[in-house]
Amino acid sequence: MTGAGYRPDSHRQLTFHDAAVAFAKGRDTPRAYLERCLEVIAERDPAVKAFVVVNEAGAREAADASEARWKAGTPLSPIDGMPIGIKDLIETRDMPTQMGCDAYRGSFPKRDSAMIRALRDAGAVILGKTVTTEMGQGHPGPTTNPFDARHTPGGSSSGSAAAVGARMVPAAIGTQVGGSIIRPASYCGNVALKPTQGAINRGERQGLSQSTAGVHAGSIQDMWLVAKAITTRAGGDPGSPSLFGPNTPPVASKPTRLIVMEAEGWAVLDEESRQAFQGVLEGLRSAEVEILTRADAPAIEAFERAISDAKAMTNDLCGFETRWSQQNLIESNPDGVSQRFQERHARAMAMTLDDYRARLLQREAMRRALADLLPLGDALIAPASPGPAPVWEGDKPGQPLAPRPTGDIVYNAATSALGVPCVTVPMTAVRGLPMGVQVIGHPHMDARVTGFARWMLEKVKPVVV
Amino acid sequence: MTGAGYRPDSHRQLTFHDAAVAFAKGRDTPRAYLERCLEVIAERDPAVKAFVVVNEAGAREAADASEARWKAGTPLSPIDGMPIGIKDLIETRDMPTQMGCDAYRGSFPKRDSAMIRALRDAGAVILGKTVTTEMGQGHPGPTTNPFDARHTPGGSSSGSAAAVGARMVPAAIGTQVGGSIIRPASYCGNVALKPTQGAINRGERQGLSQSTAGVHAGSIQDMWLVAKAITTRAGGDPGSPSLFGPNTPPVASKPTRLIVMEAEGWAVLDEESRQAFQGVLEGLRSAEVEILTRADAPAIEAFERAISDAKAMTNDLCGFETRWSQQNLIESNPDGVSQRFQERHARAMAMTLDDYRARLLQREAMRRALADLLPLGDALIAPASPGPAPVWEGDKPGQPLAPRPTGDIVYNAATSALGVPCVTVPMTAVRGLPMGVQVIGHPHMDARVTGFARWMLEKVKPVVV
Repeated sequence: MTGAGYRPDSHRQLTFHDAAVAFAKGRDTPRAYLERCLEVIAERDPAVKAFVVVNEAGAREAADASEARWKAGTPLSPIDGMPIGIKDLIETRDMPTQMGCDAYRGSFPKRDSAMIRALRDAGAVILGKTVTTEMGQGHPGPTTNPFDARHTPGGSSSGSAAAVGARMVPAAIGTQVGGSIIRPASYCGNVALKPTQGAINRGERQGLSQSTAGVHAGSIQDMWLVAKAITTRAGGDPGSPSLFGPNTPPVASKPTRLIVMEAEGWAVLDEESRQAFQGVLEGLRSAEVEILTRADAPAIEAFERAISDAKAMTNDLCGFETRWSQQNLIESNPDGVSQRFQERHARAMAMTLDDYRARLLQREAMRRALADLLPLGDALIAPASPGPAPVWEGDKPGQPLAPRPTGDIVYNAATSALGVPCVTVPMTAVRGLPMGVQVIGHPHMDARVTGFARWMLEKVKPVVV
Repeated sequence: MTGAGYRPDSHRQLTFHDAAVAFAKGRDTPRAYLERCLEVIAERDPAVKAFVVVNEAGAREAADASEARWKAGTPLSPIDGMPIGIKDLIETRDMPTQMGCDAYRGSFPKRDSAMIRALRDAGAVILGKTVTTEMGQGHPGPTTNPFDARHTPGGSSSGSAAAVGARMVPAAIGTQVGGSIIRPASYCGNVALKPTQGAINRGERQGLSQSTAGVHAGSIQDMWLVAKAITTRAGGDPGSPSLFGPNTPPVASKPTRLIVMEAEGWAVLDEESRQAFQGVLEGLRSAEVEILTRADAPAIEAFERAISDAKAMTNDLCGFETRWSQQNLIESNPDGVSQRFQERHARAMAMTLDDYRARLLQREAMRRALADLLPLGDALIAPASPGPAPVWEGDKPGQPLAPRPTGDIVYNAATSALGVPCVTVPMTAVRGLPMGVQVIGHPHMDARVTGFARWMLEKVKPVVV
């Protein structure tokens, strides 16, 4: 498939929830499902490079165990037997955790993170580790966009997004601090959930105040089932009440009124991408959904102003929070990290505690400004990225490093900082590549936002520009 | 020194802040200070067993480097050259981190935790790792009480409390989830700060929603200087504004009105301990501090009711939050953990996410009830433990395990759950052993509470019962 080929209305994503129905009826088996995934990986991963490690033997064993449970009528959960990809920042007992970083090459903690334990307890097949940018930051891995290899898959959840986009797996786990779930999902034609801050237990990865684990999937149904399989077993981060909502996928639900979030992306959105997003808004209006913008209410204008510096704020907050561990890493292995990593670290080391506190206060103000929107609309809506995946040709010797080789976080930094649930759905194609539209809620409205997104996907005509 | 010998009015604790003055004037040196500490350790640690590892060579090297800085007039901080003990839950690059747990025997991550990095950057001498109970939970280590070896030093910061109590070091780092800083400090005659939740960066140990790192010390001055040396460099937990207050130790400050917190401890306080605490209250009244109790205001009565189940709530919250990692540990090394650990884990595994959410709501209600006390008093006051250190003779073969070999958390579970700053000061002796009195504040009032505690220590007569 090439870039020119992507059309959201005809592209079929890989789904599991309907296969599980076939397992129950004996028409299909988890092992056969897995083998089909492995065939796609064999065919496409040499170019896409979504996986760092694929544990074929372990996956086959897990799939066979799942098959026995389905045959006995005792599956552990609706996702029993689902092959799933795991972003390589997250610890798995049977595969290394190398975090896209030379300094961690061969690192093998032999422990399951909280969400991995829960997925195994739910019967899921932990198939492989997917490429992440270096330590989840800016320096890219080898993954290419499944719809056009000249383009980035996005990051930092590059491999998880690409593996789902290329139909290698029905779902994969990602993490987001600035824009690392929703943006690559947008670029790769995925459905994805970045839940309310902390709603999915991050296990050993609690070191950032605005990072969250989430789910890439080929369907809303699988996305939700994976999130619930984890959270009913492992809960959320310490102190989080975790994900609220039904155990079955939220039904499609039509919103009454949606608020457009312009954020820092509006000004840099190219003409065709803006046209595609406006087309989706037109579709919503045709279905009698009211659309509000910053000109329609002072509270929306105030919100836009409050979030207008979210990208720089996010970089500062995350830099300060991780600098102590990055300092350890650089001291113990100065050649094991990239120049991008070193430059970012140097900026973080220049911050004071008071600089950090000022950014925290700014984030609190953003959250209050968001709360003021509660009476105005059911949810917010925005492009999931500032256009489709950009071309990435790699760093050029002797030239300055590209600041964002995996694309820009201008449509994700604010929602990351707000800690709110976002669901992206593949509603548009721009220049033959996917671009997602995200529905954004208030904290803990994950299920509601998912229902709205599902309704859009099922009832609103996708836009091809 | 024996139990019968402890008197808070005559017992001299080890201090550093005054020695630093001598360093500056050339009358003493960090190396000489360290050698005096090592002499005390050589003399007393065979019985007290406060340290798991002492890094004599590394400490001498660090002390010599500090000496050079003091001589050059360029100390890195007021605690440059201070020998400090580190609870063995916290990672240090030059010593193993074995967490009092057989499963972690020999574990050596070779990384500095956030607070260790900050302490080294401030010039402190990381002298050794101090004994913790198994994984900071109930199963005790070998440490004995420095004032009577038949008694427990308290836990889980057993070694840190005992090392300070035995004058081996002027300060040591502890951590508290239920009562693990303030209770052992009370038993060992220390001054100690459990700061506002998250105010001191816990580094890699973010896995519990109500744990905090804190400081044991021989003086209020050293306690505060250590806390500030860390927090000005490493900040607090991700998202925390960290410790507020001056860079120099807060001056002694007389409170106008204090509220007695009875908590779950009042009912189990033995007669002599109650008499000792009442004696301190009498001293406060004589100094014209007004003392309020639950009978004096409906809000205080409501607060006492809200916190009346804090101990069971704390155990449930912490059990649920750690069960995934404990499951990993038990599966990979079932013989590497104690029977106490296994029993606690089994209780946690029986919980559902809804059980956990109910406990979170209970904790939120406690925090609201505390906020209602803001207009009534400057701070709260309570015994720091329900009496002095109990006798601990070890587990008896064939008999049920003692539920709390290191003493009871009835005076600490509520304040841990509330996330509020507590400072304990050694104000009483009961049956020849120390018992602390704690001053408790609202969130982020750490400096204010420290000033009140300092005033008590300097102006209120200690009570010997």
